[in-house]
Amino acid sequence: MDRPGLAPPWRTSVWLNTPAPIDLEAQRGHVVVACAFQMLCPGCVSHAIPQMKAVFDLFAPHGVVVAGLHTVFEHHEAMTVTALRAFAQEYGIRFPVGVDKPAADGGPIPQTMAAYRMQGTPTLLLIDRAGALREQIFGHTPDLWLGAQIRRLVDEP
Amino acid sequence: MDRPGLAPPWRTSVWLNTPAPIDLEAQRGHVVVACAFQMLCPGCVSHAIPQMKAVFDLFAPHGVVVAGLHTVFEHHEAMTVTALRAFAQEYGIRFPVGVDKPAADGGPIPQTMAAYRMQGTPTLLLIDRAGALREQIFGHTPDLWLGAQIRRLVDEP
Amino acid sequence: MDRPGLAPPWRTSVWLNTPAPIDLEAQRGHVVVACAFQMLCPGCVSHAIPQMKAVFDLFAPHGVVVAGLHTVFEHHEAMTVTALRAFAQEYGIRFPVGVDKPAADGGPIPQTMAAYRMQGTPTLLLIDRAGALREQIFGHTPDLWLGAQIRRLVDEP
Amino acid sequence: MDRPGLAPPWRTSVWLNTPAPIDLEAQRGHVVVACAFQMLCPGCVSHAIPQMKAVFDLFAPHGVVVAGLHTVFEHHEAMTVTALRAFAQEYGIRFPVGVDKPAADGGPIPQTMAAYRMQGTPTLLLIDRAGALREQIFGHTPDLWLGAQIRRLVDEP
Repeated sequence: MDRPGLAPPWRTSVWLNTPAPIDLEAQRGHVVVACAFQMLCPGCVSHAIPQMKAVFDLFAPHGVVVAGLHTVFEHHEAMTVTALRAFAQEYGIRFPVGVDKPAADGGPIPQTMAAYRMQGTPTLLLIDRAGALREQIFGHTPDLWLGAQIRRLVDEP
Repeated sequence: MDRPGLAPPWRTSVWLNTPAPIDLEAQRGHVVVACAFQMLCPGCVSHAIPQMKAVFDLFAPHGVVVAGLHTVFEHHEAMTVTALRAFAQEYGIRFPVGVDKPAADGGPIPQTMAAYRMQGTPTLLLIDRAGALREQIFGHTPDLWLGAQIRRLVDEP
Repeated sequence: MDRPGLAPPWRTSVWLNTPAPIDLEAQRGHVVVACAFQMLCPGCVSHAIPQMKAVFDLFAPHGVVVAGLHTVFEHHEAMTVTALRAFAQEYGIRFPVGVDKPAADGGPIPQTMAAYRMQGTPTLLLIDRAGALREQIFGHTPDLWLGAQIRRLVDEP
Repeated sequence: MDRPGLAPPWRTSVWLNTPAPIDLEAQRGHVVVACAFQMLCPGCVSHAIPQMKAVFDLFAPHGVVVAGLHTVFEHHEAMTVTALRAFAQEYGIRFPVGVDKPAADGGPIPQTMAAYRMQGTPTLLLIDRAGALREQIFGHTPDLWLGAQIRRLVDEP
């Protein structure tokens, strides 16, 4: 019998918009919606970030944990934490954003991105109350579908 | 104690895209999503109709009943059934559309529109499995919210 | 040597938004921008009509003649003059719109559409001060290009 | 009698997408369209940059000089030349972009921005063949208007 596996832990170096890092394990009991993005990825900026802002506004008041993961796998010298802070301020991002930890071996793919075997950015993650990774989607996700999926996870016991 | 009342029956003259009229009472057990619109209402054409097409594509395969109601309350001479058929064909509408029955006294407001005391078009109706009118919204509805609300009703026993 | 031919005369039955029909020949000395459309053509409604409204607002004050031509070649029973009047009112069309004259032999293609050998709707016509048809484009026209072309004709002596 | 003054020279440190810096004075005889922007300015990214890409594609083949000016007046530590290079690559910018020279006194406003007394980003500049600054517009500019204005300058002797 098959069932979705546990979402791998997030390995992050720094967090914005939150007093304490978001530890996935500590979120058990909560639905978690996350978006892995890069601040210089056009599709992230035009679609995924505005969508996550709307998800945060609509679902965070109902206990859903909404987070961004800055999974930089190219232009590392441009997408620094300093640049990310400016980006988050200019784009009015209020949800927590964690910076994916650079590879230990100096490679381009950061650790969380590697653990999830993401294909690129944006990548959406939906994690249920039990910590299972229920959806991982690379690319554009329609709002209608996303609203339904989040609600489905919220309605689970 | 307060609870949502039953959705009033739909009073219609003609139906498109369905072999038989949709009788609300016969839909008990199904979630019903309906959009009251006029074919010459700009907001209906640019937002509500495309949204309903997406709702139909996403939710009809899961047993949700999706329907349009042509609630003509102005320009009656222009928005005839003949014109509606052409409109539905040109805009690729595949979900059932019922024509709201003209007022018996010759007034401008058709019967279903009057029964629901709608303020204008577009108006969205969400009806649960028990036939209760859970939401009635005049104007624009964000996809994210709508997806969540439909899923919420679908998840109810 | 080749040069653009004279724009064929418009053959129309009725005009909206103007006290007198627009006779192309009487417009010599003026640049004329026209859009052939159908009120139930989705691409006309979403792109061409809003574009023509902007063209009217920007260029009519500078002497450019802006007009619509309702070239109905399908769903004739739906796109009547009565329906067109309601459409023009609901969509806030203030520029003159002429109804293309039905074919004398009862065929589907109206007379002006046939004279210009239009392929469908929307079709944009640009006519210079001398009455020559300088551009005839079927489909979508980018605003940047259109603004430049109109200005080019306006700048001609 | 009043007439538009000469466009002040551009003071830049680095240029992208061009073998040699663009010297305004050397462009006499050419129409110049420029956009002052910041890579982390949302309105620049969503509107002004795509518009300039379209202007470049449409008008550069006809001899119009199209350029960007990276006028960084905030978040200087984030919007470095390194970051700008990554941004230009990711957003597919092919027109030349000059980096506005930082203020000599260490203030936040760079030198070209100060010389033009720009109010913010994006700011559009239209310069005629004689080097006169004909338009300077802060904020959004409609394509239809912009196409007409550029063409107007192109048509001047």
